[in-house]
Amino acid sequence: MINKMIDKIKKTEAPIVVGLDPMLDYVPEHIKKSAYKEFGETMEGAANAIWQFNKGIIDSTYDIIPAVKPQIAMYEQFGVEGVKAYYKTIQYAKEKDLVVIGDVKRGDIASTQEAYAIGHLGKTQVGEKFYYGFDEDFATVNPYMGYDSISPFIDVCKKENKGIFILVKTSNKSSGDFQDLKVNEKYLYEIVGEKVAKWGEEHMGSDYSYVGAVVGATYPEVGKVMRELMPKTFFLVPGYGAQGGKAEDLVNYFSKDGQGAIVNSSRGIIAAYKMEKYSSFGEAGYAEASRQAVLDMKLELNKAISAR
Amino acid sequence: MINKMIDKIKKTEAPIVVGLDPMLDYVPEHIKKSAYKEFGETMEGAANAIWQFNKGIIDSTYDIIPAVKPQIAMYEQFGVEGVKAYYKTIQYAKEKDLVVIGDVKRGDIASTQEAYAIGHLGKTQVGEKFYYGFDEDFATVNPYMGYDSISPFIDVCKKENKGIFILVKTSNKSSGDFQDLKVNEKYLYEIVGEKVAKWGEEHMGSDYSYVGAVVGATYPEVGKVMRELMPKTFFLVPGYGAQGGKAEDLVNYFSKDGQGAIVNSSRGIIAAYKMEKYSSFGEAGYAEASRQAVLDMKLELNKAISAR
Repeated sequence: MINKMIDKIKKTEAPIVVGLDPMLDYVPEHIKKSAYKEFGETMEGAANAIWQFNKGIIDSTYDIIPAVKPQIAMYEQFGVEGVKAYYKTIQYAKEKDLVVIGDVKRGDIASTQEAYAIGHLGKTQVGEKFYYGFDEDFATVNPYMGYDSISPFIDVCKKENKGIFILVKTSNKSSGDFQDLKVNEKYLYEIVGEKVAKWGEEHMGSDYSYVGAVVGATYPEVGKVMRELMPKTFFLVPGYGAQGGKAEDLVNYFSKDGQGAIVNSSRGIIAAYKMEKYSSFGEAGYAEASRQAVLDMKLELNKAISAR
Repeated sequence: MINKMIDKIKKTEAPIVVGLDPMLDYVPEHIKKSAYKEFGETMEGAANAIWQFNKGIIDSTYDIIPAVKPQIAMYEQFGVEGVKAYYKTIQYAKEKDLVVIGDVKRGDIASTQEAYAIGHLGKTQVGEKFYYGFDEDFATVNPYMGYDSISPFIDVCKKENKGIFILVKTSNKSSGDFQDLKVNEKYLYEIVGEKVAKWGEEHMGSDYSYVGAVVGATYPEVGKVMRELMPKTFFLVPGYGAQGGKAEDLVNYFSKDGQGAIVNSSRGIIAAYKMEKYSSFGEAGYAEASRQAVLDMKLELNKAISAR
């Protein structure tokens, strides 16, 4: 799956993953109205509005991007109905041949983590039969509990030819609270990064490991260090755009071959029509606005990469 | 809610939370058979079997325990149908006036974490209306991303009079990989613990904070240190029984008043009928076996506490 993602990045020339993190505020009125008319002003109505919104974004961008990353929190806030919309979004994106990164950030003890790994990337046995739960292609994983909370995911990844991205240095302001603590002259995120690189040797694709790392766009000096520390580790880079990360800062997250990283943008793409720059698209043109935002981001990233 | 939990612990004299972490292997054949007959050998069938299993355990124990802790991973492995069973289990436990700790271990950046907080403990706005998503009383939270991944939960807890347990030192074997790293003579888990205690001052109940800590039963020396370091922090203690934690080791997790901690047991209670000690109950008596296992655990814990 890491090979497929890299192939798709090369084909689209876009190291971009669109974060499908819909807030109800992002959803145009006409979509909400129609969903509420059919399902009421209910969790079901809200979940349906979000699913329709996502479908519009996917239809408008699937030919120019390699991957999408739905953030499950945005769906869990609508309870069971939201989780249904999460599932539908994944299935639809896969129908369009997009790589799906489930941003679930799960982390638990071995037997429990195995259940998460099976539920999100693998198959569950029921009697004599096997079923996929959510069937994402990649999942994000939290390292706080150590290796036995990682290995069940690696096992399922090997079986299913799928991958994970482990949190190393996150893009948020407080990420330094613990990740930047110094252990014998090294930052905690460096120690985590070294471990991730080592664990990744267990499950290599052609050029990069199936075990990737999350390295936030908002700390570019960290991206540079981590790129050198983890040459075979693919980076999922959140924090571009709305969170403050800029294209020129991201150059060092990529390897010399221009590969090795995929940059996420959520709000900056899916809610582009709300930005002044894309306001001419209007609410009705929200999906076209998101396509234009992808094209602009692609241009910016490629300009920065080729200028280095 | 922390006050309610403490009251219920006093009333039942049982600082025990039953971990509703059902594996299909734990579910007696007659329950599976009947569920598969109605819903097929499908995810729906499996989820229904698990829900029926949980209902039996709750019916058999709700009058002698203060709380249950469903582990959402065990439900997510059955996809959307599993998540429905998770929701039903929560609602049913609350009908029986049990405190529900959602073991979800969520952790993400501020805006995303807010969606989790709202989805699990708070209310989501849809148009003019407000709805609960999953409506647990407490949730477990992962600290790796720092304070801005904690504060959205504290905000919702204040509004809803609910609480959280933040992972400090977990019960699994590899918990030391990162949690035991030394930062200026202190273990990382101590630094996290100190922060948790400090954050907890923001939202105090009568004797303990609404912001609790997860401290595993499998490292008793750690429990002792953390109890002294965090006098106002309530501990959720996993790892008793099947994972290796013993009653006499847990004495120091409690405060001098015998309060301050609630001990989780999952397999040792819900799958008690599979243990030799309780085999006379048979599959048909799985729920009664779980009641007996609770009573035995209560006796052991109270004996150890009063003997110190």
